[in-house]
Amino acid sequence: MSDIYKTLEPPYYAVIFTSRRTAGDHGYAEMSERMDELAKGQSGYLGIEAAREDLGITVSYWRDLESIRKWHENSEHKLAQIKGFEMWYKSFKVRICRVEKEYGFEG
Amino acid sequence: MSDIYKTLEPPYYAVIFTSRRTAGDHGYAEMSERMDELAKGQSGYLGIEAAREDLGITVSYWRDLESIRKWHENSEHKLAQIKGFEMWYKSFKVRICRVEKEYGFEG
Repeated sequence: MSDIYKTLEPPYYAVIFTSRRTAGDHGYAEMSERMDELAKGQSGYLGIEAAREDLGITVSYWRDLESIRKWHENSEHKLAQIKGFEMWYKSFKVRICRVEKEYGFEG
Repeated sequence: MSDIYKTLEPPYYAVIFTSRRTAGDHGYAEMSERMDELAKGQSGYLGIEAAREDLGITVSYWRDLESIRKWHENSEHKLAQIKGFEMWYKSFKVRICRVEKEYGFEG
């Protein structure tokens, strides 16, 4: 289960991954768990938040653009990206963002 | 139902709102629908994406920081923000981000 990520002070970076799934699992759940685990071991990884209804939104947080670039180029992640095109996603969008300000509360 | 937002060219802005709800509705569903409707009428509003499981993630997209500031200051929205503190959310975080790059595919 992902939780609200307690981040560092901005600026840092967020990758917003929005997707629609195809029907059926086709190894998706296993890959998703593996990618979470792999991301956590990457340099510059800060945290992740995720929710899915009809639309899925996963936001991962990173220290800088270089960390995001390296994660994008990770060979095991690359294979997952190819399979994503081929079988898991009907459509998706990736947005690379610079987090400039944050606030919130813990009730 | 929110859909993957087909945006303009970056840069534009995203507000990532991550939350945990309290138990029960207490007028939340009605307010949420009204806020969606109200946001859509705001100057600089571009679109919205949302999903909730245990964690809720709503990402709204805006043309610039001034549009976000005006939406934040909207009087009806302000009332909803106060009620959010009082009754709807156990915890939340708001992140204001500059979208620097995007890519995706439509299968």
